[in-house]
Amino acid sequence: MAIKKDISQAVIKRLPRYYRSLKLLSSENIKKVSSKELAEMLDITASQVRQDFSNFGEFGQQGYGYDVDKLKLEFEKIIGIDKTYNMIIIGAGNLGKALNSYSGFVSSGFNIISLFDIEDKSNENILSIDSLTKNFIEENSIDIAIITVNSDSAQSIADKLVKCGVKNIWNFAAIDLDVPKDVNIENMFMSDSLFVLTYKMNH
Amino acid sequence: MAIKKDISQAVIKRLPRYYRSLKLLSSENIKKVSSKELAEMLDITASQVRQDFSNFGEFGQQGYGYDVDKLKLEFEKIIGIDKTYNMIIIGAGNLGKALNSYSGFVSSGFNIISLFDIEDKSNENILSIDSLTKNFIEENSIDIAIITVNSDSAQSIADKLVKCGVKNIWNFAAIDLDVPKDVNIENMFMSDSLFVLTYKMNH
Repeated sequence: MAIKKDISQAVIKRLPRYYRSLKLLSSENIKKVSSKELAEMLDITASQVRQDFSNFGEFGQQGYGYDVDKLKLEFEKIIGIDKTYNMIIIGAGNLGKALNSYSGFVSSGFNIISLFDIEDKSNENILSIDSLTKNFIEENSIDIAIITVNSDSAQSIADKLVKCGVKNIWNFAAIDLDVPKDVNIENMFMSDSLFVLTYKMNH
Repeated sequence: MAIKKDISQAVIKRLPRYYRSLKLLSSENIKKVSSKELAEMLDITASQVRQDFSNFGEFGQQGYGYDVDKLKLEFEKIIGIDKTYNMIIIGAGNLGKALNSYSGFVSSGFNIISLFDIEDKSNENILSIDSLTKNFIEENSIDIAIITVNSDSAQSIADKLVKCGVKNIWNFAAIDLDVPKDVNIENMFMSDSLFVLTYKMNH
């Protein structure tokens, strides 16, 4: 599978949606899917589907549709969820605790190693931010840090994470964080989704 | 402001991102912004910005850039956040509690009226799902219901909400829900964001 360089953000953002559709089809025991059917599931055009797929090589034969399970596996490889990841969470408020106890992570290969907080919550088995060190990150092979502190503390936490050698950050704080270019960051701005809903309500 | 019909999902999903960029510029006291600068902030092309804006009428004069504060207000109107909304949350696990205590909602005009749960949590001031009725929805002018129960219960909760007359659902459960066509639903699939991160990590 030869993946083209410079794949657009729009295509990358559609990958999880393709994967979700394929998982659904697979769970319904559907074996074949056409680009037209996938397009309908994603609310895009069939030519967009074919164009998206062309970034990742050949997935099927024109006119015969795609093999659902095979394509699902291809997408797992492309998205990188054919592997496991070790994660930590910084911020043991309700959101941090919700993510920490979310069973869906474990079943998808995302292991949460530890939950940290700025405040002393040692009685709840939550680690102090002071014990978050370069050593800890290395010894526990931490792949991803999740930031669930409030917006005011998020940048200083991001700085600390970068200093400790964390290369991938999933940010839930409602601000854009400055990180070096070699650090991947993905923001989970929940209000974006709420605003799409209010838009729909008003039009 | 004459808004065109049939605005694509892709454009709608960019609206909150334009709004976030404009809020940031405004907070930095920047008065003017060009389509090129906005395009860079959103990681799209300037012609895409102009094309997006053309759906909503005229925002500025070619070559002069846009007035940041004026454009921010226009986007508030377009997104519909120039109004207030009453919300309820169904599912008082950690995620439901996190949303219930999120102060950002109140400051943006989103009032959480009540938190419900399937289990009896009356000692925590959480309402029983049995008290969720058509009457409750009407008397409290509920605009939006947030579903934070687990995937297994989400469809039956959605059915109950629809029966009670709820017209707008913000769904955090990791499944697509079936609702009538006149009910707006917006899904907050958090793993989509995580998968974009794992994609970036692997490419």
